[in-house]
Formats: sequence, structure tokens, C-alpha cells
Amino acid sequence: MYDLIIIGTGPGGYEAILTALRMKLNIAVVEKDKLGGNCLNRACIPTKYYRAGAHLIDKIPVVDKYGIDLNLNSVSFKKAKEGKDKAISFLRKSFAQLLKAKKVPVYKGTGRIIDRHTVRIIKDSGETEDIQGKYILIATGSVPSSVGSIVPDGRYILTTEDFMENLEELPENLLVVGGGVAGCEIAYIASKYGSKVTVVEIKDRLLPIPSVPAEVSRLVQRKFKALGIQFKLGTYVEDYKVEKERVRFKLSSGEEIEAEKALLSVGRKPNTDIEEIGLEKDERGFFKVNEYLQTSVDSIYACGDVVNSPMLAHVASYEARVAVKNMFGEKEKVDYSVIPWAIFTAVEIAHVGLSEDEAKEKGIETVSGYYPFTYNEKAVDELETDGFVRLVFEKNSKKVIGGTVVGIEASEVIHTVAYAVKQNMTAQQIHEFVYFHPSLNEILLYATYDVAVGKLF
Amino acid sequence: MYDLIIIGTGPGGYEAILTALRMKLNIAVVEKDKLGGNCLNRACIPTKYYRAGAHLIDKIPVVDKYGIDLNLNSVSFKKAKEGKDKAISFLRKSFAQLLKAKKVPVYKGTGRIIDRHTVRIIKDSGETEDIQGKYILIATGSVPSSVGSIVPDGRYILTTEDFMENLEELPENLLVVGGGVAGCEIAYIASKYGSKVTVVEIKDRLLPIPSVPAEVSRLVQRKFKALGIQFKLGTYVEDYKVEKERVRFKLSSGEEIEAEKALLSVGRKPNTDIEEIGLEKDERGFFKVNEYLQTSVDSIYACGDVVNSPMLAHVASYEARVAVKNMFGEKEKVDYSVIPWAIFTAVEIAHVGLSEDEAKEKGIETVSGYYPFTYNEKAVDELETDGFVRLVFEKNSKKVIGGTVVGIEASEVIHTVAYAVKQNMTAQQIHEFVYFHPSLNEILLYATYDVAVGKLF
Repeated sequence: MYDLIIIGTGPGGYEAILTALRMKLNIAVVEKDKLGGNCLNRACIPTKYYRAGAHLIDKIPVVDKYGIDLNLNSVSFKKAKEGKDKAISFLRKSFAQLLKAKKVPVYKGTGRIIDRHTVRIIKDSGETEDIQGKYILIATGSVPSSVGSIVPDGRYILTTEDFMENLEELPENLLVVGGGVAGCEIAYIASKYGSKVTVVEIKDRLLPIPSVPAEVSRLVQRKFKALGIQFKLGTYVEDYKVEKERVRFKLSSGEEIEAEKALLSVGRKPNTDIEEIGLEKDERGFFKVNEYLQTSVDSIYACGDVVNSPMLAHVASYEARVAVKNMFGEKEKVDYSVIPWAIFTAVEIAHVGLSEDEAKEKGIETVSGYYPFTYNEKAVDELETDGFVRLVFEKNSKKVIGGTVVGIEASEVIHTVAYAVKQNMTAQQIHEFVYFHPSLNEILLYATYDVAVGKLF
Repeated sequence: MYDLIIIGTGPGGYEAILTALRMKLNIAVVEKDKLGGNCLNRACIPTKYYRAGAHLIDKIPVVDKYGIDLNLNSVSFKKAKEGKDKAISFLRKSFAQLLKAKKVPVYKGTGRIIDRHTVRIIKDSGETEDIQGKYILIATGSVPSSVGSIVPDGRYILTTEDFMENLEELPENLLVVGGGVAGCEIAYIASKYGSKVTVVEIKDRLLPIPSVPAEVSRLVQRKFKALGIQFKLGTYVEDYKVEKERVRFKLSSGEEIEAEKALLSVGRKPNTDIEEIGLEKDERGFFKVNEYLQTSVDSIYACGDVVNSPMLAHVASYEARVAVKNMFGEKEKVDYSVIPWAIFTAVEIAHVGLSEDEAKEKGIETVSGYYPFTYNEKAVDELETDGFVRLVFEKNSKKVIGGTVVGIEASEVIHTVAYAVKQNMTAQQIHEFVYFHPSLNEILLYATYDVAVGKLF
């Protein structure tokens, strides 16, 4: 009997493996597809690869300001995909080598939990094999949701996974259904690699997510306009058909649009059809877990997109670490109070903690500190000054409770803000810290000046 | 009488102005040259501008991995200088606009302190004007040092300031005397923009600075070799002459080398010849200040390169904030325990707190955590995986006391480490934090695994 069977090798499974191996546990791993799960093979990592390329394409018009004289001949998504595949293959092989070096058995097949200690592996051949563990960790992630009647077919109507894993060539025109995170990220990538993109979003703004402030949506919309990415807000797809190798959408506005391909990007649902023992689920279909991430069966824990917490790779990893420690080490409650996240579209957007609106809803009085990257010397030197930092403080204590960073390297700078939130730092403490000059992080010094010292105007 | 007279508008003077204006003080500013001082006009900001260009040039050979097909026609330092001048001019104008908007009088000329409340401004015309302040802040910075007999002439033998402010065209060959921070930064820039560079360093490694670990010097040396930048360690210039428009060096090794230009980069000395009242100085020529940054005359404070603290722009800024608060607000002792710094050469290098060697010298027992960028998914996506993070912990408490980051965006990631050092965080706390995936900061999770959970091998 293993100490622990881990089902799934996405960010949750991967971290569970690392933690368990470092705790000297005897583990087995079940994976039905490629090592690394969606995150590595068809979500986070390919997205950021393509985004790195798109960002370089964005740089080309300004390189003459650095005295670089070049001719851009072409951009090829197909070649970018080859690079992407290599990068991901390197990471996947490193993962496989680790498992091999540590002699971790990897059972290839679909895992089904058939009793509190037993996972049945159903192999591609149809054969089955049962393995036993003192504990089982469910880290099976999620699958793309559908909306209305639109059914992805992998050819004309793509999921984000189709796009990120397999798409070889971009269509001349791409319709994106859903202007949320993945929709805006892919719209930007496809546009920089040469597609004409139209985003259809049912709500009244792009990135219509409670913790994305309206000012950020407006900035993305301005950027999309400048890039020629069309978007139709307050609009949904009423009807569609695929004919003559084209997708035709009839929109709620009455307008009809068409393209060679459409991308369906309307969220994800938990992949919970993996057990036959009646683990309890909530009304949205997530496995119910307590604050130690234990399911309704005490030998079975769950992490990541199968439980009701933010659907983010790093939340899955974090939960995996907590779950494994709770099985074999000191008990630790899961804590979602400080989770930074980021969006990589025409601008980089990152956030942690409470926004001003969220604080207001909770009845917390706030003051905020703001500073644009316009005068940040590092951003000026990098010729990327769009964006700003906004920090939110509790009004009386001046403790920082959240922050938004938009612009250059926002997804890195957010970590300093996140540490400050985690450590309950005050505006004064953030202000009195010594930041390297010139750095992007230095913007925190300036975003706290008003609150810590006094206003300039 | 002004509340405060600030002499110098470099990073110290600039921050003093911002803090004083926010404290609603009535101030005057004295500047003999351009607003922004050395940092803005001929040090930090131009260096990072050119470095941003050099880094883009470095990227060009890999852009095909993103499907970008381009021809590099040429790189022109002259055009890069135009871009640099524009960026700096924008920042200088913003500074001037602020002073104008706040109606701050700017006295153009050299300031000399002639009594405890009086600064005499000596204008270019020779005219003088005396102004009075309750307090005076000396923020006059530093000037380049010479070494032995080598005398910069602004034409064949350049200072770093000549290079950064005025140089229009790079020489075909450049000799760099001094392989410290500025020497290695300029060697990299000049090399990427087309010069053949030879660095002469008297010590046995590049970046021979106590807090730069030997492994980092070795990495820079490997990179320099790969870039074709020559360096001669344990070597100094025994004699030199300038003839037929060439600089000829006779080295201590007996070798003779020559080039169209040489750069002298052997440190800086405080610019303290600005007073006639006998302010006390230490044996190295810095103004003596107490821990409130007050000189031997209680109405006169000093900050930045004129006092004996790390010669860094952000230390000057920090001291300026502390000094102004100490004049008019709550008393605050200056604290140099957590000062991040960074070097921008063929790799980006950043450090904060104690290195393992420095801790050992202080009798502190340590354990350390290490992780390379090789497997950091963001670094893989950005095709920049050279480098690593090393965190140093006090052995018993496992509190982090220092860290080194080498590689992509090291100068940003160091801030998270610096916050951790400042907040006395343990390896466990750093490890349990939730980092965005994929991010560079995530490397801190992996660099703490050994100490917080256990070793993998």
C-alpha cells in the first residue's frame, strides 16, 4: 500500500509529488494524458510562451529608439508553436526525469476511486489495475465549459486548450466568444501573430471580473482599439452555423459576423467524474472539502479546480502542499486571503487582496494610493510607461489590504505588494522601505507618498 | 528665510524636494548643472536605457523561436544616444514642471555654505547671491575618482560620466580600466553596440565586491567570454600614453594594448568642496553625520554620496527622506540593514542583506536555499534561464538574512527577498506564500523547499 496516490499531474499533482518526495513518502501517480496537465500543456505555460513572442512583436516598432535597425519580414504562429512545443517538452521531460530518478511509479490511464483506499486505473487498452493508498489526492483539474448551443469541434470551434496545444496555423479571422481572462489573452496573441480578431462579450466591459477595476477594463479596451482588435460588448451569440469552412455567428445585436475559426472561452468546470463512492459535492459540482482540504471521506483529499476555490494553477499548487502536509504532517488550514493573480493581454494586469469596491462591499473604509508608470525611470528606459499601481489601505490603520498593478512586469511587482498585504504592512512601512533605483518596484514608494507623508497637490 | 535649502538635485535632492513639498515646507533648490544630477543625466538612468537596448540586441538571435523572422541591418550607438537623450530630457522636464508648478525657486549656480544658515550661490557669470534657510541639506553627490597617473581628458580617456552623457560614437576598440559595477555594465553595453572591449581589473575576478559571491563573478566571466569581451584579471595599467589618436596601455603583465578610447571606471569620491565653515569630515573625506544624518553643525544635514554609506542612488533618496523628516517631523534613525542593489551587465545581478561569507565573518551560522532558473516556467517561456536564487537563513531560526538573485529581472525579484529580510520572515513563511504561476518570483517557493520541507535528493 502506498502512502499516497496522486491522481493528476497538473500544478496540483506536481506540487503534491514534490512535497511528498521531500517528506520521504512512498507515492504513486496516476495520469491519463501528458505529464503536467492542462497548465503545462495547454494553458498557463503555452499562453506565456506565445505572450512573450507577442510582446517582442510589440517591441519591434520602438527598437529604432535603441539604435536597432531591422526589417521585420514576417511572423509565423506555426514557428512559434514549434518553439512553444520545445519549451514545454523540455519542462515535461524534466518532470519525467524527476519521477524516474525518484522511482515514482506512474500509472498511465484514467483513475477512478472505487473505495476509500483504492484507485482503479483504466488503461487505454481497456485493462484495469487497482492500487491502494493510505491517502488519495484528487488533482484532476477542470475542462472547458460550453455555453448555450455552441459546441467546440476542435476544427472550426476551438476551446482554449485546442488553441494552446494543437493549433498550427492562425485563421485570417478569429471570433472569440468571451472577453474574460483567456479570451483577452488569446485575442492579443492571435492579433499580434496576424489574425483579425473580434471578441464577443455578454457583459458591458472586457475582463468583467469583480476584482478587475473598471479603469483597467477601459485601458484594455483602449489598447485593443489601437491594435485593431474589435470587441462587441453587451452582446452574445444568438445562433451559429458552420458552413463552407466558415463559422457564422448571429449576434444578439442582429449583426452577423463570420470567420474561419471561433474560440470558445467561457470558463471551465471541475473534472469530478472520477469516483464511484459518492464523494459529496456542492451545488456547483465541486467536491466539498473542509478547511484542511479533506473530502467527505477522510482518507481522500482534493485540490485545485475540483474544489471551490479560485481556479488558478498556483492555488492548486498551494492546496496540494497544504493537503499533503495535512495528511502526514502538522495540520494547517487553507488560507485564500492573499492570492496574487495576473492577466497577460495587451497590457499586463495583476492584483492581490481587496479592490476598493470589494472593500466597500465588506464595509471597510479605505484610502488609496496611486502612481502611474509615466514617471518611473525604469519604465521610461524600457519604453513601456502605460499603466499604474493602486494600493488600497484600511482608512484608520493605513494597513494595505490590496493592490492592482497594471503595466510592465505587473505580474512580478504584484509579489512585493502581496508580501506587504500578507505582512499587514502600513503605508508608512511600504514608504520607508529602500527600493533599488531605478526599478519598477520603486513605484511602491511613490504610490504610498500621499498616504504616508502628504499630498503633493 | 526658507525652511530648507537643498543643494543638489540628484536622487537625494529630488526626494528631499518631494518630501518637503508634501510636508508643506517652504524650500529653495540650488543646482549648478542639469536638474537630476549624475543619476539622471550621466549614471543610473542612461545606463539602464542603453542596457535595455543591449538586452534587446541580445534577444534578436532567439526571436525565431517565437516565429519572428527579421533581418538585423545594424546597431547604432549614436541613434541609441538620441533615444537616451529624449528619455532623460522627458524626465528632466517633468522635474522642472513640478518645481514650476509648486513655485520652488531654483538657484542656478554653485552653492557654498558660508554660515550655519546661509548658502552663497556663485553663478556662471561670477555674480553671487546669498540665501538663508532654517536648515540646509547637502546633496552634492560625488565625482569620478582617478587612479595612479591616468587622467581622463574627455576625448581619449573617458569617465563613466563622459560615456553616459556625451559619447556620440563608440570606438572600434574600448579599454575599460576597472572591472567593478560601472566597468562591467559599460563593457556589456559597448560590446553589444559593436565595440571590441577589453577590461583590465587589478583583482582576481570581475565584480570583486565582498557581497558579490565568487560564483556570480564566474558566471559574468563565462558570459563575457561568450560575448567576446576580453578581460585581464590581476592586472593593472603600469603606464600609458596617448599618441596618434590612440591610447596605449602598458600593463603590469608586460603586455601592451591599445585602442581608440579608454574608460576609467575606478570608483567615485565625495563632492564635499562646498562649504567654508569647517564641517567635520572622516578620514575618507565624507561629511561626518550622526544617525539622524545631521552634520557637525545642527542646522545642516547631508545625504547621499557625501556621507559614508553605500554609494547608491536609492540610498541617497532614502537618506534625503529621513533627513527632511528629522528636521521637521518625527526623529528617525537611518537604517542600512536592508538595501537591495543590482548590477546590469551580461546578466542581471541583485543582492540584499548578508551573503554566506559575510554572515560567516559576523559569526552567524547559516543554511542556504538554492534554485536555478533552469526549471522556472516563466524563464523558460522567456528563453532566459541563466541564473539562480540563493537565500541565506540563520541556521536555528531559519530566518532569511540575505539573498542573491541572478538572471532575468533579478533587480525586481530582489524586492520580494528584501521584504522578506526586512520582515524577518522564515524559510517556512516564504515557502508557504502563494506565488503567481508562472512567475519569476515563484522561484522563492522552490529556493525554500529544502529548508522548509526537506531535501529532494
